[in-house]
Amino acid sequence: MTMTLQQRKKHENFSEWFEQVTLHTMVYDYRFPVKGCGVWPGYGFKLRKLVLDIMRNLLDESGHEECLFPTLIPKSLLEKESEHVRSFEGEVFWITKGGFTELGEKLALRPTSETVIMPMMKLWIKDYKDLPIKLYQVVSVFRYETKATHPMIRVREVTTFKEGHSAHATYEDAEKHVWNMVELYKKFFDELCIPYLISRRPDWDKFAGAVYSIAFDTLMPDGRALQVGTVHHLGQNFSKAFDVKYLRADGSHEYVWTTSYGISERVIAALIAIHGDDHGLVLPPKVAPIQVVIVPIPYKGKELEVYEEAQRAYNELKLAGFRATMDDRRDVTPGSKFYEWELKGVPIRIEVGPRDVERGVITLVRRDNLAREEVPRNELVASIRRLAENITIALKENAWNYMKSRILRAHSLEDASSFIRTKKGIVEMTWCGHSECGLALEENLEAKILGAAMETIKVEGKCINCSKEAMKILRVAKTY
Amino acid sequence: MTMTLQQRKKHENFSEWFEQVTLHTMVYDYRFPVKGCGVWPGYGFKLRKLVLDIMRNLLDESGHEECLFPTLIPKSLLEKESEHVRSFEGEVFWITKGGFTELGEKLALRPTSETVIMPMMKLWIKDYKDLPIKLYQVVSVFRYETKATHPMIRVREVTTFKEGHSAHATYEDAEKHVWNMVELYKKFFDELCIPYLISRRPDWDKFAGAVYSIAFDTLMPDGRALQVGTVHHLGQNFSKAFDVKYLRADGSHEYVWTTSYGISERVIAALIAIHGDDHGLVLPPKVAPIQVVIVPIPYKGKELEVYEEAQRAYNELKLAGFRATMDDRRDVTPGSKFYEWELKGVPIRIEVGPRDVERGVITLVRRDNLAREEVPRNELVASIRRLAENITIALKENAWNYMKSRILRAHSLEDASSFIRTKKGIVEMTWCGHSECGLALEENLEAKILGAAMETIKVEGKCINCSKEAMKILRVAKTY
Repeated sequence: MTMTLQQRKKHENFSEWFEQVTLHTMVYDYRFPVKGCGVWPGYGFKLRKLVLDIMRNLLDESGHEECLFPTLIPKSLLEKESEHVRSFEGEVFWITKGGFTELGEKLALRPTSETVIMPMMKLWIKDYKDLPIKLYQVVSVFRYETKATHPMIRVREVTTFKEGHSAHATYEDAEKHVWNMVELYKKFFDELCIPYLISRRPDWDKFAGAVYSIAFDTLMPDGRALQVGTVHHLGQNFSKAFDVKYLRADGSHEYVWTTSYGISERVIAALIAIHGDDHGLVLPPKVAPIQVVIVPIPYKGKELEVYEEAQRAYNELKLAGFRATMDDRRDVTPGSKFYEWELKGVPIRIEVGPRDVERGVITLVRRDNLAREEVPRNELVASIRRLAENITIALKENAWNYMKSRILRAHSLEDASSFIRTKKGIVEMTWCGHSECGLALEENLEAKILGAAMETIKVEGKCINCSKEAMKILRVAKTY
Repeated sequence: MTMTLQQRKKHENFSEWFEQVTLHTMVYDYRFPVKGCGVWPGYGFKLRKLVLDIMRNLLDESGHEECLFPTLIPKSLLEKESEHVRSFEGEVFWITKGGFTELGEKLALRPTSETVIMPMMKLWIKDYKDLPIKLYQVVSVFRYETKATHPMIRVREVTTFKEGHSAHATYEDAEKHVWNMVELYKKFFDELCIPYLISRRPDWDKFAGAVYSIAFDTLMPDGRALQVGTVHHLGQNFSKAFDVKYLRADGSHEYVWTTSYGISERVIAALIAIHGDDHGLVLPPKVAPIQVVIVPIPYKGKELEVYEEAQRAYNELKLAGFRATMDDRRDVTPGSKFYEWELKGVPIRIEVGPRDVERGVITLVRRDNLAREEVPRNELVASIRRLAENITIALKENAWNYMKSRILRAHSLEDASSFIRTKKGIVEMTWCGHSECGLALEENLEAKILGAAMETIKVEGKCINCSKEAMKILRVAKTY
């Protein structure tokens, strides 16, 4: 592809930056002729796979089984849990025809899979020994979004929906699992160097059919909070609707308690948005499809030494297990290569020139801060390993520091309102915990309540709205 | 799950055997309440993944990139290639509503992705340096089948559609790629020990929009041929319909030449059907989710030695990279364990009893022929490796021999007709190559033409229908 970036100022025009950078790096192509549907070309697919691999490993290690459930949901099934359908029916794609035939019963494209998985759980669960069940799938889900769509962030086909589902013998077991999954998601986001806030969504904004919902939000460069993960305690709402019972040791029957938890390609959007800069992508080494690129810089008469040394370096890195690429194209200048690999976010670039060969050193350039350093040639692998670790640490620190700098503990509604409008960030306020105060704040600030902070934060003072004693820290922000 | 097999005679009632065995091993659960839609529980998902891994490796090594394209196709895109839509429009699921809104343009659920990928190729291909493009995706495709559905074999949601797509600068390049892909599929089926016949589909049965279609068929236990893979030369039919051109070195513009090729979960159906027996699944070691199961057989007073030895064997096998499982459940008898693991098709069982420990030996039982052997304890890993190879060879030989025994070179229409009716197999006949004779044979034999043999087979004699000189070997069988 021979295209040039139109717009690369991340902080000036984030939407444009995001669409251009993902397109020109072949991470995501949003030009498909159906609104809200994007394509993952090769480079993006590899990035997506590496991100999902981290999630799969975490889930597999914690006793989950990966499964695959059907896409089509008969209307009658979707309607079984009444709150659930009320929330989703306005945004479900409906199949009404098969070939030339009107279908007897409409089929929904799954917007999420609780109503698909419960009928199977009913068949699979007999007694307490079958519990807990922990499973997940990675699939497309479909939502007829009526709001403005954004590539990866608000799409009609969510192509990377990792949904986990569990069933337990008691409320407490399910609750324990909810918190285990919150911990698991923390590990996941930590691996990706994505900072997050964990909030309990207000009751009017919890998942449809949930007892409560815990959400992970991060902050995007345009100052809007982005929900990147959720964990729901579903109580017995779905098990009662789908009649999923188990036999207890004492011979009685009880409905199971279920949970569900999901992430989507929004995680990849956050990864790109948070770490990227005006040169393009900046990928954490762990998920970079190419971790190291080697660029030989030949001088006349010294070509052979340079190419041979570059090849040796490449071989060493491959042997050590790095995802390395050799860029020995003869018809492209080193400068153009640097531009290209920086755009693609390759964490480390190795330059091999004739002077380096003579002196027994090798030049490394970090993508995150573009700093150069020389290391002894015979310490190449160890140096790359160290540098990759340092990059990871720096990306994480910078991302957390940036997010924290955009969070204000507001002591008045005026401060809160002005911060949201001008500083583009998240406001935290003391809150009595009552819905009325929450809803009043939401209206007043023209922003959205993320919910009550679940991190350990000392709560002191009065509710910012009603002046009664504060019980919680409430978070409010503009959102997607 | 506590269920018992109702029917396990593979050759007496194949359909029932297949559904019961896949259900009771948790490979595939076909009880989902939408016709033609099945669920892959954990064990089946793992099997499916191991099968797909072989395919992914082959494709990645041959320069393909895995991608992901959208599921929804606007009616106008699906209609661009006229033959294509004529063939598919009778079996497409149509989305007509989003939420409460009638859609302006109907959306099809992809039945295959040529019409999704071509608009993107148009954006990605500029000049000859961009060619060839080789990509694939593994996705669900949807077909409103009006024929009887069968689990995995004829479903409405094909959950495991691996579709490859390529674009080339010349007809010959595309043709060469077709044959490379035929070779690649041969390797794939060889790895799975699945025997196959390669036939060029007759013109009236080629893929809609193809110049020609090469198909892989195998033989199922009920005597029906099953198409398990296809490779299509699409010529410029799609590139002209979608206006996908490239700039040649001489400055002129030319439409690209495309191909497509696919396999589906039918491959897994064939794997199960062909190798399985009246005890259940028989899985080739390469794709068995569990390759070795260790069953300690403790005797009173000797428990400790036995469990310790079993644990040591398990550790050695894990270290050597085998997918091993230790079955040390105390409340289940060895006999029940044998039954269960045989049903699940685990290729090798290790039994560890007190006498074995004393004598420094270990007992291995092969799943394919249930033969037992003792091997020296200190040769465990090498013995398992050898046995796994022998099992693979035996499965492949037996499967090929069985298929060959069910193929008749018929010299008269009576022989052909009687063989298809009574022996349940595939008939090969000399053929002049003309459509009229093919169609006449199809009608006469009440069976389906698979096409002309593409293997090197000597053709001598007269067309079985018209007595003109034979040019080809024609294959006919009952099919799914």
